[in-house]
Amino acid sequence: MTTVPLTTGNGRVKEARKLSRRSARSERRLFLADGPKAVESAIVVPGCVVEVFATPAATERHAALSAAATAAEAAWTLVDERALASLSDAVNPAGVVAVCRFLDRPLEHLLDPAPRLVALCADVRDPGNAGTVIRTADAAGAGAVVLAGSSVDAYNPKTVRASVGSLFQVPVAVAADPADAVRRAQSAGLQVLAADGAGEVDLFEADDLLAAPTAWLFGNEAWGLPEELAALADHRVRIPILGRAESLNLSTAAALCLYASARAHRV
Amino acid sequence: MTTVPLTTGNGRVKEARKLSRRSARSERRLFLADGPKAVESAIVVPGCVVEVFATPAATERHAALSAAATAAEAAWTLVDERALASLSDAVNPAGVVAVCRFLDRPLEHLLDPAPRLVALCADVRDPGNAGTVIRTADAAGAGAVVLAGSSVDAYNPKTVRASVGSLFQVPVAVAADPADAVRRAQSAGLQVLAADGAGEVDLFEADDLLAAPTAWLFGNEAWGLPEELAALADHRVRIPILGRAESLNLSTAAALCLYASARAHRV
Repeated sequence: MTTVPLTTGNGRVKEARKLSRRSARSERRLFLADGPKAVESAIVVPGCVVEVFATPAATERHAALSAAATAAEAAWTLVDERALASLSDAVNPAGVVAVCRFLDRPLEHLLDPAPRLVALCADVRDPGNAGTVIRTADAAGAGAVVLAGSSVDAYNPKTVRASVGSLFQVPVAVAADPADAVRRAQSAGLQVLAADGAGEVDLFEADDLLAAPTAWLFGNEAWGLPEELAALADHRVRIPILGRAESLNLSTAAALCLYASARAHRV
Repeated sequence: MTTVPLTTGNGRVKEARKLSRRSARSERRLFLADGPKAVESAIVVPGCVVEVFATPAATERHAALSAAATAAEAAWTLVDERALASLSDAVNPAGVVAVCRFLDRPLEHLLDPAPRLVALCADVRDPGNAGTVIRTADAAGAGAVVLAGSSVDAYNPKTVRASVGSLFQVPVAVAADPADAVRRAQSAGLQVLAADGAGEVDLFEADDLLAAPTAWLFGNEAWGLPEELAALADHRVRIPILGRAESLNLSTAAALCLYASARAHRV
């Protein structure tokens, strides 16, 4: 028996395509994971993948992935090239896109018990930056990433791609109010360190501070942290600028802070 | 006397527009700096800016910039909105674009005498990554950035933008052969440390090594450093991965390495 690949007009393909819009994602708490690497990371998460759409060629290329999907009780649905492309925002779609359930959990669950390292993003707007922070937080061994305030949607296709699988590996929470998230982290026993170019503590001279369990607070790419939010932190830490650059890219700054903690925790 | 803004059909505007192509840039050793911040950084470099194209509205908005251009003997030329947009690759052009002379200098000049910290990129392909490495190298106090092998053009508009002015502030060299660049750095008295996920040295345990003057060698985003190139380095250093991420973004890895050196140098 031969299965005929679904086309762009198919109802299920149409429903999945709507998930490229944030409003549709939020309403159904579903998003798209694009490409074999992302789908592979998603399938490992119990109950995450609802359905995988794949072209016949990609199905042949990724036989192990298809078997893993079946073992995870996720449907593996053949679609034609055009239908697949309509689900992907990649320039060269890789032939596999999964419909996944949202992964974020309530902040209070992630803080009970509190992990030793948390990344708390307030109003981070660039999807690539948010995805890179998630990837770096995972690499640095962080136990949670919080996207707070008007931060970009964690399930934006560019965020999912830039996280290179880490969105499926590091616990994520969404918090409406950054100040409330800071207070919750403190109540859970974490010190909150604000990454702030004008901070009173030099990152290079903060080893004693860094040894304690920490939630790092990062602000917006363009305007940084609002003063009243930075004031809630236990300390404000600046990364020294030794040359003539005015500042660092947000995801670069986050990497330096998170890894400084990881190093202090390991010693 | 009123000056009539030039339109898209004007010869000088047409010539400048060609600089969006790498071949035209290389041939004329000229490139475009887009937006008031980039133009401001460019004007500080003696002899860098040939001509600034600006809309009448932007000229009014940036009077100090226009005065600085005149003081630097760079022409300030009025163009209409469409002509300006044709010179910019920004979604919302900021109204000011400068034609600039190439800034790179021969590697041997940058190594005589050798700075204490150098970033050497081999086959870095993503323009945003290259620009971010230039910005971070500047912030970490590096004395030179080398783009070697098949690395992206330093004057790609996306690279210029991601460097946020640092392209005009940190000395840059272009080198055809990465292996030759490694040997030159070593001859100039620098140790070469290759950033390599499989390296034999742990970055967290490398403080003694890091104290010496160093050229960091970074490879391609997807495939890293070719084995024979990594073998030329004095040591191969891995950034510890403490969570489940497979690797780090190239510009993130570069930041962690360059700042580890900056810290060791300052102590």
